[in-house]
Parts: sequence; C-alpha cells; structure tokens
Amino acid sequence: MVVGELAHEKDLVIIGGGPGGYHAAIRAAQLGKTVTMVEKESLGGVCLNKGCIPSKVFAHGAERLAAAKQDEMLGIVSSGISFELAKLASYKNQVVKQLRDGVEALCRANKIEVIRGSAFFLSTDRIGVENEDSYEVYRFKEAIIATGGTPVKLAGPPEVNARVIDSWSIANLAEVPEHLVILGDDYIALETAMTFKAFGSKVTLVLCGEREEFSFDASINRELNRILKKSGITVAKGYSFEEVGLKSDGVSILLNGKKGARKIEGSHLFYSLGTKPLLDNLGIDRLGMELSEEGLVVTDSSGRTSIRNIFAIGDVTEGPQLAVKAIKQGKTAAETICGRKSENDLTFLPVIARTRPPIACAGLTEQEAKHQGYDVTVGEFSLAGNGYATILGKKDGLVKVVFDKESDLMLGVHLIGQGAVELISNGITALEMAARDEDIIFPAYPHPSINEALLEAAEAFKGEAIHSIPKKVTVKI
Amino acid sequence: MVVGELAHEKDLVIIGGGPGGYHAAIRAAQLGKTVTMVEKESLGGVCLNKGCIPSKVFAHGAERLAAAKQDEMLGIVSSGISFELAKLASYKNQVVKQLRDGVEALCRANKIEVIRGSAFFLSTDRIGVENEDSYEVYRFKEAIIATGGTPVKLAGPPEVNARVIDSWSIANLAEVPEHLVILGDDYIALETAMTFKAFGSKVTLVLCGEREEFSFDASINRELNRILKKSGITVAKGYSFEEVGLKSDGVSILLNGKKGARKIEGSHLFYSLGTKPLLDNLGIDRLGMELSEEGLVVTDSSGRTSIRNIFAIGDVTEGPQLAVKAIKQGKTAAETICGRKSENDLTFLPVIARTRPPIACAGLTEQEAKHQGYDVTVGEFSLAGNGYATILGKKDGLVKVVFDKESDLMLGVHLIGQGAVELISNGITALEMAARDEDIIFPAYPHPSINEALLEAAEAFKGEAIHSIPKKVTVKI
Repeated sequence: MVVGELAHEKDLVIIGGGPGGYHAAIRAAQLGKTVTMVEKESLGGVCLNKGCIPSKVFAHGAERLAAAKQDEMLGIVSSGISFELAKLASYKNQVVKQLRDGVEALCRANKIEVIRGSAFFLSTDRIGVENEDSYEVYRFKEAIIATGGTPVKLAGPPEVNARVIDSWSIANLAEVPEHLVILGDDYIALETAMTFKAFGSKVTLVLCGEREEFSFDASINRELNRILKKSGITVAKGYSFEEVGLKSDGVSILLNGKKGARKIEGSHLFYSLGTKPLLDNLGIDRLGMELSEEGLVVTDSSGRTSIRNIFAIGDVTEGPQLAVKAIKQGKTAAETICGRKSENDLTFLPVIARTRPPIACAGLTEQEAKHQGYDVTVGEFSLAGNGYATILGKKDGLVKVVFDKESDLMLGVHLIGQGAVELISNGITALEMAARDEDIIFPAYPHPSINEALLEAAEAFKGEAIHSIPKKVTVKI
Repeated sequence: MVVGELAHEKDLVIIGGGPGGYHAAIRAAQLGKTVTMVEKESLGGVCLNKGCIPSKVFAHGAERLAAAKQDEMLGIVSSGISFELAKLASYKNQVVKQLRDGVEALCRANKIEVIRGSAFFLSTDRIGVENEDSYEVYRFKEAIIATGGTPVKLAGPPEVNARVIDSWSIANLAEVPEHLVILGDDYIALETAMTFKAFGSKVTLVLCGEREEFSFDASINRELNRILKKSGITVAKGYSFEEVGLKSDGVSILLNGKKGARKIEGSHLFYSLGTKPLLDNLGIDRLGMELSEEGLVVTDSSGRTSIRNIFAIGDVTEGPQLAVKAIKQGKTAAETICGRKSENDLTFLPVIARTRPPIACAGLTEQEAKHQGYDVTVGEFSLAGNGYATILGKKDGLVKVVFDKESDLMLGVHLIGQGAVELISNGITALEMAARDEDIIFPAYPHPSINEALLEAAEAFKGEAIHSIPKKVTVKI
C-alpha cells in the first residue's frame, strides 16, 4: 500500500453480504444512510447459498418424499414412487438463485452499493478491497464486520472430499449415500440424519465429544430419541472421534469412549462440528480490537466493538452461531449507527431444527431453570392427544412449557412435532412479554389445530389438560 | 310424566356431548364435580362426527393431492397419480372413530357418566331423558345446555338429497362431483370449494344474499379473490338464491341480482348458510329462559342463563357459531359452576378457514377498526418476499397487521398463506396481552421461516420491512 493513495469516501461500509450483512445494509438504507457492502462471493452468504436454504430445501424434499409414501391411505394412488436426488438439487439451485436475485434486487432498490472483493482493515477508518487484479481503498465513517464463519474442520486428514463431507458440500452430493455416518449433535447433524434417512440412506448418528445426550430439554430429548429409534436411525452416544480411514468403497470411522473403541463402516462421513469465525485475513489484529478467549469479536449489546465506529455481527461474535442471531444483530447495529436506540437481547433466541418432525425451543429448559435456582413447574402435552395431529397422521411429538412456580412466569417453551417452528413464535412473544400461565391459557385457540397442544401443555401445568388422562393431582380452585 | 315419579339425583348435568359439552364435562370433573352428560347421538357432536373433523380430513387430502402433483420437481417421481374419494372417506371414518374413542376414553377416565338419549327440561332442576322405550328423570343442581345446532336449510324443496348437499352430507359423497355449485360465503363454503377443486371438480362459488364480497379484511379478500381466480374457481357475487331445479343428471340453480337473473347448471349443489340452534324440543319455553330476538339463549360472560343454575354454551348462544367458541364457553361455564372466577372474552376469537392456502384472522379488520373510530395504520407483507415460502413453493398469501396510530396498539392480525393457522396464535397472544408494534418487532423470528412474514408485516407498518421494495416513506428515528 502506498501512503497517501486516494481513498474513496464512504459512509457506512459493511463487510459481508450474508443475512446479517444485508439486513444491516437495508435497515441502514431505510434509515437514510448511504451504504456500501463488500462481498467476496455471493450475496446472501453461507446461509442462503450453502447453509440454511439448501438444507431446508432438502428437508422439505425429504418431508414430501416421506409423505408421498403414505399418501395412498388418503386416496392418492400412484404406481410406484422413486426419488431422484439430482432433481431435488436442481430445484435447490433454482430456489437459491431466486432468493439471491431477490437480495440483489433489494440492494439495488435500496441504493446499496455492492463491491465485489475481499476486504481488510488498514486502519480504524480505512479498508482495502482486493478483487483479482484490482485494489481500492475506502475510508468509512462506520463499518460493520459481518464476515461470518466456516465449518470447523475435522481434525487430521482427509480433507473434505467425495466421501467425507461437511455442511457446505452435502448439498452437492451426486447420489444418495448408501450408509451415511454423521458426526455431530447439533441441528445440522439432526436435520441431515433425518433428511437422508427419508431419501433412503442407512444412517448412523454419532454424538461426538463423548456426549451422552442431545442438548434440548430432557423431554424433547426423550421424544427425539424415541422418534430416531422408530425411524431406524442408529445413534451412538458417549464416543469421541479418533480417525476416519478412506477406502475405495467407503469410510471407516474409529471412535473411542468409556465403553471402549468402536469402528463404524459407512459409505460416507458427514460431520457438523460448529462454525469457526472468518476473521483471519481481515486485519483486525492491527486495530487492537478486543477479542474473546475463543477468538470472537467482543461487542456491547448494540453490536459495537471496542473500536467505537466498528460494529460486528453474526458468527464472528459471541453467542449461538445462527442466522437468526446475525439478522437481529445486523438490524440493531444499523439502527444504532443511524442514531436509533436499539439493542440485542438474545435471551429468547429460538433454536430450530427442521427435523421430521421439527423441533423449536426458546427460553430455559427445565434443567437450566432448575440450575438457575428457579422453583420449576412444567406442563407437558403429547401430540398423540391432539385432534389435528391425528387428522394429519402426525402424532409424534410434544409441547412442554416451563414455569417459575413462585411467579407463574413462563421461562421456556419447547416443541417437537408438526407446526413446532410456526408455534414457537407464540412462545417467544409470550416469553418476551413476560407471560404467566394464565396468558397462555386465556386466549382462544383454533379448533382443530396443533396450536391447541400449546394450550394443553400450559393447562397440564395445573393438571387441567382436557385431552390427557387425569393423574391424581390436587387442584386448587 | 307421572307426578311424584322418582328422580335420579345428579350434581352437574350437561346436555350435549359436542366439543363444548365434553370440554365442560372434563373441566368440571377435573375440578371435583360429579358430572353426567346426556348425548343423543355420538360423543364429539357435530364438530367431530359431521363437521370440523371430516371437512379437515378432506382439506388435508386435497392439500396432499395438490402437492403430489407438484412433487416431481422435488425429485419425487411417480408414474401417474389418481384420486379415489372412497379411500379418503375411509381414512376420514378412521380418524373420526379414533377421536370419538378418545373422547369416550377421556370421559371414562374422568368418571363422567354418559347417558344416551334426548333430554328436555321438566323444571329448573329436573330433566327427562328419553331413549327409545326408556324414560328417566334426573334432578340436577346445575345444568349446561350444549345441544349445538344444525345447518340452516335451503328455503323450499328439495330437501338434502344425492345432488343437493349440505355440510353434514358432503363427507358421504360417493364420487367427486363433476361440477359443484356452492352457495355460501363462509369458511365452510370456501373450504369446500378449494377442497373439491383439488379433487378435480369444476367449482362455482355463489356468494348469496346479494353479497359482493367475502367478510375478511379487505387485503385478505383481495388476495383470496386472486387465489380463487388463479385456481380456476368461478365466483359469482351480488346474487340471491331463487330456486334449484333437479334434473336426472344435475341441478339447475336460478339466481337473481342487480345484474338480472342468472342460471347456473351443475352436477351438484352444496350450500352453507349458517347454523340453527337446536333448542326446539328442549322444553326451555316452560322455564321462561330469556332468548334473544334470533331465538338464541342469552347468557352472561360466564355462560349463565337467566335461570341461575342453568348455563348455555356453543351454537345455542349468541356470537359466532364456531367450535372454538363452544370450547372456551364450556370450560368457563364449568369453572364458574365449580366456584372459580372465570369469564368468556370472545374479542379475539380466531376465524379460520382451512382453505388452500389457509386463512386465519383475529381482532379487528382495517375496515372495522376505522368504523370504530380508530386512527388506523396497517402493515402488510406478501409471502412472495418470504424465503421459506419460496422454499416450499407457497408464495401466495400475505400477512396484515392493524395498529392504532395513536397508541401503537395492535388491533388485528390477518393471515392468508402457508402456516397461517399456527401463526395466528402468536397474533392472538399478542392481542390479548395488548401488544404494541415493538412487541412484535422486538423478538427474534426463526430463519428461514414463515414466521418472519409476521415480523415483516409489523415492520412494514413503519416502512421497514427488509424484504419489500422500498416505497417513498418518511422514516422517523
């Protein structure tokens, strides 16, 4: 870099055009800022192009494939159903393109300047952007770091290849694996397990790091384990990953645990081990920006870093590595920069898995609430008792609500089952508005609907769910 | 009846075992009452046996049939799909039996005595129950009238027959009608129109009573009309029904309106003209019970009639004739009888149509809010801008929120589109808790999800929906 070289003057510069970045850009533009967004690959980022969207298209295809196989009892008769992964992949590409085009159109309509290239900080008010042979310098008033992350790599060789795949490469598989071994216990691992099981793969799910259980509420874990077993997915718990051997026709995975060593042979290995922040080539070391022990950018509740005019959002910051967090943080940072009082409160951030059936949780689990010292009461209702679930033939699942016995305040909502994702927003709104049991019980719920399961879970808290066989309880009037 | 004849002594007697009745019975049993329920036909009532549940099974079948025809783009390949109504009807019978068995089991488990027969009041504390040759008299402390209603009949002959059908008889059709003419504009008429269109019928929907429009919020009406047109359903507006002629191979329906007379030829006529309360043979005339001008039982907010120890719930009372109302009233009446302070507030009763896509509304429409004198602002968001709707290929629909400009209080939520039914509970909880726009905007919404459309509708209220092309608006910070 040449001292004194001409810098283009910019207002707000956002580095990264993923969901966090483009939400920030559009919100800032809505509030009157001139916005420049730097993106080295595709607008929409990992979420749209490689992560959430492709995996949700696959999950949708899996759900429909499984449904098609049960349609005959509904009078929908066809002579034999087969599945072609390539067609679904092509639909996925269409969806991704359509959504990416949408984001590009929104950026244009909001007069957001999009610059292609890799950005790095030169100082606290200048960045350089490299794109093949070109190199430009921009001076900014404020910047937002929204560079996201990459999948944590499996220790040791081999790298990702045709048989060892991660969350970025799985959507590009040419064929349905014969036996997919999955390493991981997060929502990505679970979605992949259920999706490929529906596609016809044999699936073995290995909880790594010697984990003995999934990280949901205990009741969700119990139901999830039952559903996994019922669907024929083998789950190996309590092991740590040792190594993977590549063979001409498959992979051989060596595990170790308290129960001793175990070898699993499969056709493919998929792993989901979390996300690593993309900060390496960003030049933030030279700015003296405060990082956490884990190497994540430390921010205040508005997203401001230790450098006053630079904000950070999404996977480069502390907290769960979810698009929903990046989006919330992106809008908050933009609003703060535009002078609006705004803050992130991620207390009731939902955790979602588009499994079959889906899982959606917000707030404290029963275990967490007890651990935090609450005197906890819970209400639970099985979808087996829900009329609409019976109509749909979707009776797996349950709803659980966690209350503080002293105040009757709701602390958490946990759903597994049809409609879980849509219904969690009812739970989140209730949690945000400090709902008590009566706030859930008082409203009218459509009949027949899955919604009624949430009502009955809250009623069960007092032993008053209508569609549960009564237990011996003392009822106070 | 013989004076002085022996009466069986009962505690709480509930007349009618439909959704209102059995919810009341179970809640009262939960609170310690000894409950007797009199039912002349099947437990579960019209809703379970003839109404909501059968029609929802059909709607579910229709949705899946339509989906199956689009599955190929998801890689789900089959060689030709045909539809057999008889198989769906058989599945419907299974579902109905399963749910009815469930209600019976719950009644047994809650030690509710179920008496078969027709009940009528002898006095304010005695009823007679007739069942074929048997006749018994029961003395009660409290009674709940939950006898429900029957479909209002079409004026003049012919009665319901193989070609002229109502909401009770449609689920028994042997074959898919070639051309189904539908008279009515309520959710039943709409569901039937869309269900049978998916089954392969030609469908003509006639809004009766010279109505020019559906009764939803204007934005929902607009989108609904667009979807009806797109799906090939003909809608005739502004006519009143004159007469139906029966021919050997169909029906001939004569309409009249401002635009003159019109004759529609079809293979079948279906009509849905509301519900008539079932009070005729109940003997309430001799009790001096207060009725409304329309012949409905007048109650206070707990469900108590003008006779202190007799309550009434559901379709025999004023207000919308929906199961959701009966259920809420049933529990409230039971709780009141058991000494708990409880009341019905039906302000935010949801209106649901399991159309394709579904419709779900609660609170005031924009028109109603203006009419009531509010200074109204609205936010609207199209599902075409929602990522998850794109994944599902379900981009029809919109979300609209109605706010009071002065207080920012939410007055109504209106949804048409995938997930509408599940999401309305978020809206209802928010309305019940007196949410303002910020209470909808602040929470985190799962990504990608249909839920985000509700958020963006609320954001649109301030011109801040992320996925809408910006209009020229003045934004206040």
